[in-house]
Amino acid sequence: MKIIIINGPNLNLLGNRETHLYGRTSFEHYLKKIREAYPSITIDYFQSNIEGEIIDSIQKSSLLYDSIILNAGGYTHTSVAIADAVRSSKADIIEVHISNIFSREDFRHKSFIAPHVKGIIIGFGLESYRLAVEYLINE
Amino acid sequence: MKIIIINGPNLNLLGNRETHLYGRTSFEHYLKKIREAYPSITIDYFQSNIEGEIIDSIQKSSLLYDSIILNAGGYTHTSVAIADAVRSSKADIIEVHISNIFSREDFRHKSFIAPHVKGIIIGFGLESYRLAVEYLINE
Amino acid sequence: MKIIIINGPNLNLLGNRETHLYGRTSFEHYLKKIREAYPSITIDYFQSNIEGEIIDSIQKSSLLYDSIILNAGGYTHTSVAIADAVRSSKADIIEVHISNIFSREDFRHKSFIAPHVKGIIIGFGLESYRLAVEYLINE
Amino acid sequence: MKIIIINGPNLNLLGNRETHLYGRTSFEHYLKKIREAYPSITIDYFQSNIEGEIIDSIQKSSLLYDSIILNAGGYTHTSVAIADAVRSSKADIIEVHISNIFSREDFRHKSFIAPHVKGIIIGFGLESYRLAVEYLINE
Amino acid sequence: MKIIIINGPNLNLLGNRETHLYGRTSFEHYLKKIREAYPSITIDYFQSNIEGEIIDSIQKSSLLYDSIILNAGGYTHTSVAIADAVRSSKADIIEVHISNIFSREDFRHKSFIAPHVKGIIIGFGLESYRLAVEYLINE
Amino acid sequence: MKIIIINGPNLNLLGNRETHLYGRTSFEHYLKKIREAYPSITIDYFQSNIEGEIIDSIQKSSLLYDSIILNAGGYTHTSVAIADAVRSSKADIIEVHISNIFSREDFRHKSFIAPHVKGIIIGFGLESYRLAVEYLINE
Amino acid sequence: MKIIIINGPNLNLLGNRETHLYGRTSFEHYLKKIREAYPSITIDYFQSNIEGEIIDSIQKSSLLYDSIILNAGGYTHTSVAIADAVRSSKADIIEVHISNIFSREDFRHKSFIAPHVKGIIIGFGLESYRLAVEYLINE
Amino acid sequence: MKIIIINGPNLNLLGNRETHLYGRTSFEHYLKKIREAYPSITIDYFQSNIEGEIIDSIQKSSLLYDSIILNAGGYTHTSVAIADAVRSSKADIIEVHISNIFSREDFRHKSFIAPHVKGIIIGFGLESYRLAVEYLINE
Amino acid sequence: MKIIIINGPNLNLLGNRETHLYGRTSFEHYLKKIREAYPSITIDYFQSNIEGEIIDSIQKSSLLYDSIILNAGGYTHTSVAIADAVRSSKADIIEVHISNIFSREDFRHKSFIAPHVKGIIIGFGLESYRLAVEYLINE
Amino acid sequence: MKIIIINGPNLNLLGNRETHLYGRTSFEHYLKKIREAYPSITIDYFQSNIEGEIIDSIQKSSLLYDSIILNAGGYTHTSVAIADAVRSSKADIIEVHISNIFSREDFRHKSFIAPHVKGIIIGFGLESYRLAVEYLINE
Amino acid sequence: MKIIIINGPNLNLLGNRETHLYGRTSFEHYLKKIREAYPSITIDYFQSNIEGEIIDSIQKSSLLYDSIILNAGGYTHTSVAIADAVRSSKADIIEVHISNIFSREDFRHKSFIAPHVKGIIIGFGLESYRLAVEYLINE
Amino acid sequence: MKIIIINGPNLNLLGNRETHLYGRTSFEHYLKKIREAYPSITIDYFQSNIEGEIIDSIQKSSLLYDSIILNAGGYTHTSVAIADAVRSSKADIIEVHISNIFSREDFRHKSFIAPHVKGIIIGFGLESYRLAVEYLINE
Repeated sequence: MKIIIINGPNLNLLGNRETHLYGRTSFEHYLKKIREAYPSITIDYFQSNIEGEIIDSIQKSSLLYDSIILNAGGYTHTSVAIADAVRSSKADIIEVHISNIFSREDFRHKSFIAPHVKGIIIGFGLESYRLAVEYLINE
Repeated sequence: MKIIIINGPNLNLLGNRETHLYGRTSFEHYLKKIREAYPSITIDYFQSNIEGEIIDSIQKSSLLYDSIILNAGGYTHTSVAIADAVRSSKADIIEVHISNIFSREDFRHKSFIAPHVKGIIIGFGLESYRLAVEYLINE
Repeated sequence: MKIIIINGPNLNLLGNRETHLYGRTSFEHYLKKIREAYPSITIDYFQSNIEGEIIDSIQKSSLLYDSIILNAGGYTHTSVAIADAVRSSKADIIEVHISNIFSREDFRHKSFIAPHVKGIIIGFGLESYRLAVEYLINE
Repeated sequence: MKIIIINGPNLNLLGNRETHLYGRTSFEHYLKKIREAYPSITIDYFQSNIEGEIIDSIQKSSLLYDSIILNAGGYTHTSVAIADAVRSSKADIIEVHISNIFSREDFRHKSFIAPHVKGIIIGFGLESYRLAVEYLINE
Repeated sequence: MKIIIINGPNLNLLGNRETHLYGRTSFEHYLKKIREAYPSITIDYFQSNIEGEIIDSIQKSSLLYDSIILNAGGYTHTSVAIADAVRSSKADIIEVHISNIFSREDFRHKSFIAPHVKGIIIGFGLESYRLAVEYLINE
Repeated sequence: MKIIIINGPNLNLLGNRETHLYGRTSFEHYLKKIREAYPSITIDYFQSNIEGEIIDSIQKSSLLYDSIILNAGGYTHTSVAIADAVRSSKADIIEVHISNIFSREDFRHKSFIAPHVKGIIIGFGLESYRLAVEYLINE
Repeated sequence: MKIIIINGPNLNLLGNRETHLYGRTSFEHYLKKIREAYPSITIDYFQSNIEGEIIDSIQKSSLLYDSIILNAGGYTHTSVAIADAVRSSKADIIEVHISNIFSREDFRHKSFIAPHVKGIIIGFGLESYRLAVEYLINE
Repeated sequence: MKIIIINGPNLNLLGNRETHLYGRTSFEHYLKKIREAYPSITIDYFQSNIEGEIIDSIQKSSLLYDSIILNAGGYTHTSVAIADAVRSSKADIIEVHISNIFSREDFRHKSFIAPHVKGIIIGFGLESYRLAVEYLINE
Repeated sequence: MKIIIINGPNLNLLGNRETHLYGRTSFEHYLKKIREAYPSITIDYFQSNIEGEIIDSIQKSSLLYDSIILNAGGYTHTSVAIADAVRSSKADIIEVHISNIFSREDFRHKSFIAPHVKGIIIGFGLESYRLAVEYLINE
Repeated sequence: MKIIIINGPNLNLLGNRETHLYGRTSFEHYLKKIREAYPSITIDYFQSNIEGEIIDSIQKSSLLYDSIILNAGGYTHTSVAIADAVRSSKADIIEVHISNIFSREDFRHKSFIAPHVKGIIIGFGLESYRLAVEYLINE
Repeated sequence: MKIIIINGPNLNLLGNRETHLYGRTSFEHYLKKIREAYPSITIDYFQSNIEGEIIDSIQKSSLLYDSIILNAGGYTHTSVAIADAVRSSKADIIEVHISNIFSREDFRHKSFIAPHVKGIIIGFGLESYRLAVEYLINE
Repeated sequence: MKIIIINGPNLNLLGNRETHLYGRTSFEHYLKKIREAYPSITIDYFQSNIEGEIIDSIQKSSLLYDSIILNAGGYTHTSVAIADAVRSSKADIIEVHISNIFSREDFRHKSFIAPHVKGIIIGFGLESYRLAVEYLINE
């Protein structure tokens, strides 16, 4: 079983900035912990601040992976183009968010991506990613 | 560790009706499976079609349980009163939905409850409940 | 043929209050007249001011009756939960209103229930109920 | 007792087109059945695709008939001018719709005419017309 | 100097219906009075309930008259097509309304025609027409 | 003179929860103080988390009491059904709120009940109830 | 017969500024022309840029004049307070506008005052005022 | 203890105009009654139709009085500037309204001031002012 | 192959009016050019300012022609009734517009017809019609 | 004559995915057909999933090509930045869409680009591109 | 070179109130500093809480000064009348705000004045005024 | 002191295109002038049409520069992702716009970035940049 986690804009700063919202752990550190917890599966990782590179990655990953765990960051709320890539993908895609987007600004309550994914996990901090993996290995 | 699952209106019909949306498993059957999977914790269950009884249950459960897993069904989208009960509760509350509410009618995209919960899990079928338990035991 | 009429909040006051809107006949009195006019069928009756009890009644009536005539009163305009019960019911459901809801406040123009029923009859006073029966016996 | 049924745009196609929405019976055929069922009353019929001719017909019918059964078709949702004709008519007017307009596009949920009519009957197929007649003869 | 008054739907009923809104004078009677008051000019008159005939009349009148006094009735609030005819006319057009449209329903506050006319006169009863003539002869 | 105070959902928690919003006094304690301050009148009390029971109570209290002091809590902002009960009641009804609902979320600025009551008192903490009593005894 | 014209903010600049919108005639010059045209009546004049002074003037003029011709300028679109003064005045009030407010910005299409006046005259340049006088002397 | 009552536009007409909405008592007369009822405190009074003078008065009164009772009349619904003065005042401010603003036009349901005051009292006629005083002396 | 072009209101003025928007060629002249360019097919033409006659024409043309090229003019933006005729037609229908409706007023950005047609061609001047023909002969 | 076709996000998947919406032909295959059909002109091609690269391409192509045929895919509905590039380009730009965007989700009905292009062609499948070429060679 | 700074409502309180938003410096003190920094130009100052006096001042200053620096305070968001004065002024006008109005309430994001000014400077505290002067002397 | 100016999409065209909006000076030319005017500080420059590269640049610049002057061009109005980068940056960021965005289309009045910056300077042409520098050196 092969999974890829795709992270969108500003998520490369995890652990350094706005730690009251996102915590103090870097994503690389957390990723290591998940990989150790689920040794039987491959978990790859891609991050970009560029909307189109996220689309590229979703298109390619659809052919190479069983599932995609996608946190599109700020593009979640504005990108029809990423949503189109998600909709046309044959891989299972799970949308995750670290913070509770519903207790933040109104424009974060809208996700263009959500209607097209398998499921959505919101607000559990970095644990949102592990819950997605947990779902996938039991599917 | 003691958890209670509170289900709202029409969720007593799970497994019988609209199986294309909610699947063919009754909640009681599924609950048995979760309890077997997590034998070290207590998982109680309450269901009501009455908005005020759900409020009663949240108020009482806040004193008796560590955590509440809440699927308020149709009241999710209309009940300020349940949201107020959630907001004033001291227990951790996790909101779950069986179907992907974002691929359904517009009025289902709004949750009065979501801003006040620990996290939200949407669209994984009955597995949404198990992921909530999975989070709670690792918290 | 078995039919149940389910009336929602404040409809227990029919004939006593706001007679300019709803007329001076009590529902019990009117019900007697309908039963006499259609002696070959069973017409049962349930009223509650509690949203969840109306849901309970719709769920149970779906198994026991051929058809439901539903006037959800004020809940018509606010209840996703009753609409969900209607949507998942296998009985034919007809929505009726005594007054012309379209010549009243804007919030009464919206019915969450209407998209899921067989048909809707509005504004004929208590005769709205009899027209529903008339339809059902000729269906 | 004299009644006229006024049908608006595209209702001349009944029975030929979009039979999943409107059924396979032509209106002429159905009209014959109603007339046979209610032999004691006169039921005339007028259809036009032209908004202004419907207004003309409402104005004239108000003087010649006791009641009007009006299905203004697509003009229901856009015509202030027909609604003004209805409002100023002294005859009883009943609004009918063949399909359930509330389970269709949003713009069909609005009727300019409804606030000014005696009652509204929606979604019973062609039977919507007979229920209107049934009401009128018992009024 | 040649003027034409073009009246829209339901204005043929003036003096007979809704006299609390529109007064008890028929338009023909009033027109006679205006013609007597302004004997030096020609004042023609056209009324139709049909939107397209009003457009026809505006198109033709633009060639034959110096000015048009237009009361488009209910079409005022809904007709882009009449507004387009007004916009492309070379004659001066004045919009008049008998009743105060701003003290009535919200949908009457919007005029598609108003941005394209010389001036607008609202709410003076039938005198609205005479004020328009008064303006035109002094222009 | 007989008055009843009807409190809606979550108001049974007064004094225990969210004390920054609602203060530290339990309602029972406060009620005792009011009764002592106004010994000449009867002040009864009813609380329920169930919307329909509040409707039941308003209906019955209209026959048994001179006046009702109503704090419908979260139902204030969503319940057409309670508003209908208020509208059809013959007793004087005063709406009260403990916190300043206008300095909180937008959805709390709308009251379905307010258009139908004698007066509204907002934001004085528990003193809002005493001001209502003060008004009633001087009316 | 005594009339007062009340002009609102920036109308003291007439004839000097934005002459493409308002023309090149000063109001004083125009006023002289009207007074000469209607010698039998008194036409007084008041202008202020201050909202509350316009309210003062309306209140006082209601006692001293038969009619008020009011051009509230920019306050037309924002002032509930002036509209309240107009509504409670016993004098006839006519609203006038020099330019066609419906061919300008959207916020100028709304008048708080219009629902409460006798009639409205818009877009005839300064002639709008004379038409108002013309109406009043023939009333 | 020193209190000032600040009344906004058109409230100088109290007792003379629109008596169905505001009653027949002049404010001066009523003020005398309140002063007699609460002899131990100073109650001053200011009224202006000018928005900026109300701001001036709030600014000065904040330094000279313990509390302000403010009825900003029509400015309640439109004035950010008065709301800013209220927000920056150190005195306790209570907002009052004579009529029930929630049973009137939609634009009266919005108060810019309400989020910044101690409490709000609406719809008790002139008694709204006395209830405010009653609150202040018991605070 | 038989095609009909149906033109809506004011398009009979093409070449005479508003030439900056619509060009200087009359439609008859342009039609002759298209017919010469595509001699192997029949291209008929119908124009009316009357909404209902356009509906009549669409209904009849559906039986007599392979395809309809429809420019409904101002009715494009307001007519549910024409859209219903288009939806129920079995002929291929192509919607065309001469000017770029998206660079004009907001209300022109909405087409009721567009969801039901084969394709839409906008803004190429009269060439929009020829492109539609070009598509149809290559389909 | 030199033309460039610029395709936006996900259009590199044409022929492989969502064939019910976009058909089974790859764009490269189709492009070959167009080039053969119009041998006298140069038709270049650029595709990118990255919004800014599309802007780069529009800026450069404006200098190198006579015309641009632009299908901005999902960016059509969200990109002010691409629209700005289009607006400031000196080349003729034609907007094309393969599917009928008006029969899909509401957010696809809005194009930021459309107000600034020469013309728009929507819904003819891949033929939309050829019609654009057809227009350009006859311009 | 002659400049006038015009300050609107509540800005007379600068340095005394809400110092977290507006700082602790009085405007008079700050003005002295600017005048010292730019000794070659005249900088006059006007403040009023009255909307109409601000209009008066803009009208007069347009004749007497080269440029106006305008902070209309709360009137920025509500005053069409001030915006009209700005629009018709021949002097250069620069709009300034002390606090960042975009990080405050939604109603502060709208400025009626902004479309008509030379430029806008927001959020730099009192330094916003000096930047305006800095621009003007280099223009 | 080190400053970087980051320019967004289409700003590489400055001086070449739409000179009525943006002037005839290229940014490089203007930059040279600013550097000469403020020789004591380092002013670096970055421009990209790619949203994600602007995010990259903001993230990196936050570590390397004291302040950022950001003109995000068209992304200002649509990019949550850039706004997130701005919000999480520790450097002072000033938002500038060359043209007056409030006198252009409605969608340009909204800035996602503005709530998170130190200050905003709008509409002074290229001088907007210099004013930002002027602020920073005096901070």
